[in-house]
Amino acid sequence: MIKMIALYKHPENKEAFDDHYFNVHAPITAKIPGLRKMEVTKIVGSPMGGEGKYYLMCEMYYDDMDSLKAAMKTEEGKASGKDAMSFAGDIITLMIGEEVNE
Amino acid sequence: MIKMIALYKHPENKEAFDDHYFNVHAPITAKIPGLRKMEVTKIVGSPMGGEGKYYLMCEMYYDDMDSLKAAMKTEEGKASGKDAMSFAGDIITLMIGEEVNE
Repeated sequence: MIKMIALYKHPENKEAFDDHYFNVHAPITAKIPGLRKMEVTKIVGSPMGGEGKYYLMCEMYYDDMDSLKAAMKTEEGKASGKDAMSFAGDIITLMIGEEVNE
Repeated sequence: MIKMIALYKHPENKEAFDDHYFNVHAPITAKIPGLRKMEVTKIVGSPMGGEGKYYLMCEMYYDDMDSLKAAMKTEEGKASGKDAMSFAGDIITLMIGEEVNE
């Protein structure tokens, strides 16, 4: 499968971030056509200790690259992207990944 | 579930990295007791274009934090950590994550 990976650095206001993320952003994203699975992970630490750079990761799975590209062009895909930029544009890193061991 | 996330930046020599990663490191890691699932992802791009900072991600799933901590203390866990540091110590970021939507 192909996945879009969104990696968020620690937000200044974690409470406001969580509130927007879980109550607004995740529901918008979950509606994207073609989305097969969405896995949200809270980064809770590092094996070396310390809290590290990142706060949260979301992985959005699609059947293949064409499905992902088509999804980004839908109204829902655009709304999710626009929302992400509005509340986390300065702390988000987006990557497209291909699963090796399917 | 709990997962250990290993995020690798682009290696200088991708061929040598892939060879070691898939033929040596992944098989050592796959033997860690308590490991439930291992998902390797090649980062193939970014929706904004460009290749980005990261090259590969590996997610290693465990039942809970105690299982992960116990796994790190086994011979296999230590061997995997030692091997990672030997071939990718300068490009690896390790994070412990907790799945939100189980």
